[in-house]
Amino acid sequence: MRGNALWVLAHPDQSSLSSHLRNVGIAALREKGWRVVESDLYRMRWDPLLVTDDGSADVRAEQRKLADADLVILQFPLWWYGVPAILKGWFDRVFESGFAYDVPDPETGRFLKYGRGGLIGKRALVVVTAGDRHASLGPRGISGHIDDVLWPILHGTLWYTGMQPLRPHLITEADDVDQQTVGSVERSLIDRLDHVAEEEPISYLPMEDEFYDHSIRLHDHISPGVEGNAAHQHCAV
Amino acid sequence: MRGNALWVLAHPDQSSLSSHLRNVGIAALREKGWRVVESDLYRMRWDPLLVTDDGSADVRAEQRKLADADLVILQFPLWWYGVPAILKGWFDRVFESGFAYDVPDPETGRFLKYGRGGLIGKRALVVVTAGDRHASLGPRGISGHIDDVLWPILHGTLWYTGMQPLRPHLITEADDVDQQTVGSVERSLIDRLDHVAEEEPISYLPMEDEFYDHSIRLHDHISPGVEGNAAHQHCAV
Repeated sequence: MRGNALWVLAHPDQSSLSSHLRNVGIAALREKGWRVVESDLYRMRWDPLLVTDDGSADVRAEQRKLADADLVILQFPLWWYGVPAILKGWFDRVFESGFAYDVPDPETGRFLKYGRGGLIGKRALVVVTAGDRHASLGPRGISGHIDDVLWPILHGTLWYTGMQPLRPHLITEADDVDQQTVGSVERSLIDRLDHVAEEEPISYLPMEDEFYDHSIRLHDHISPGVEGNAAHQHCAV
Repeated sequence: MRGNALWVLAHPDQSSLSSHLRNVGIAALREKGWRVVESDLYRMRWDPLLVTDDGSADVRAEQRKLADADLVILQFPLWWYGVPAILKGWFDRVFESGFAYDVPDPETGRFLKYGRGGLIGKRALVVVTAGDRHASLGPRGISGHIDDVLWPILHGTLWYTGMQPLRPHLITEADDVDQQTVGSVERSLIDRLDHVAEEEPISYLPMEDEFYDHSIRLHDHISPGVEGNAAHQHCAV
């Protein structure tokens, strides 16, 4: 038994490549001994709109799934270099204050974030399909490196709430996957999921005095001279 | 007469700082001679969910507003280091193929993007309120530099469709703005809008053979050795 996994999918079309890969991925996790529950946001008719007063039953239900999960898979097509609105609205509503952040740290009693938070320790894997060619989302690709494109999710949402984000599982040229090529896309996903419990997460720096000053900016001697998102990883130190 | 402006606001609360600044900003633009139309997404009960077949009347109406606009203001609170779901869903649905992208370029007949596209030449200003302290969203701040945080919008959405994004207008510590400090926040916004027609946009590189190779990756001699989003600006060349 590998623990509990929550698979969140944001795609409107049940006959899409995304929906197919969701089926393949969930089957692969179960094969490996994970207990998997699912949030298929379009099929659930998830309401993405945060209003001033919430606290709805649908939010509580998603929070229970998250609380139980050791592993969270977030699967979506890259729309305008971000998540579809329905998934953004899942973050906006489910990741509430007092649940995902602004939670007293068990050790210190302080309200910590970035590496600590209400979702501490849960692994998170983003599975993303993009129409772009692979090099376009690489380190010098026109669309930006996928790690930078997904920075608001990987660092600003998952790491912010204490989760352990893994390197994103990126499927490029997704509009051109056909009967001939789908097998290799499936195998690559299954291989990735086979080792998802052992993989090293992205080594983002935690919000600790050792790394950040009181304005929550990197000390000069941490990643010296480096600007941009890469400065906030251990490997840049 | 300065031309047509479209002001898009994504905030659920009509008594919020955001709604107040929208009123202040629109009044300031009109004072300067702009014709301003508005999309207050929550008040319009905008439906953010892209489904497989769209083409709805609400999408057409927003496209007409965009087509008429010389200047687009996108105002929102920074939620999970991105736009609220309702605004993401405005991009997802309104920025359709054949309207915002996959439009033949008037000069070449090619389907160009990044600097060209269906919204070519329109100026775009993001006005964003954040709870973070200013340094946290600076070049070495823990949340990432605001230009990197907003990369998917500034570069991946606005520049992608041919718009001219200006440097974002960032209001930090927005939860702490009170009767004593709101005046300086208002003045700073009004000052910014006074010169919005003359300001230099962000100098992103266009998708041209001079800068990018056939995999749409920067040539080695462009921004040599630089990785990350900053490599895609003229100043880095």
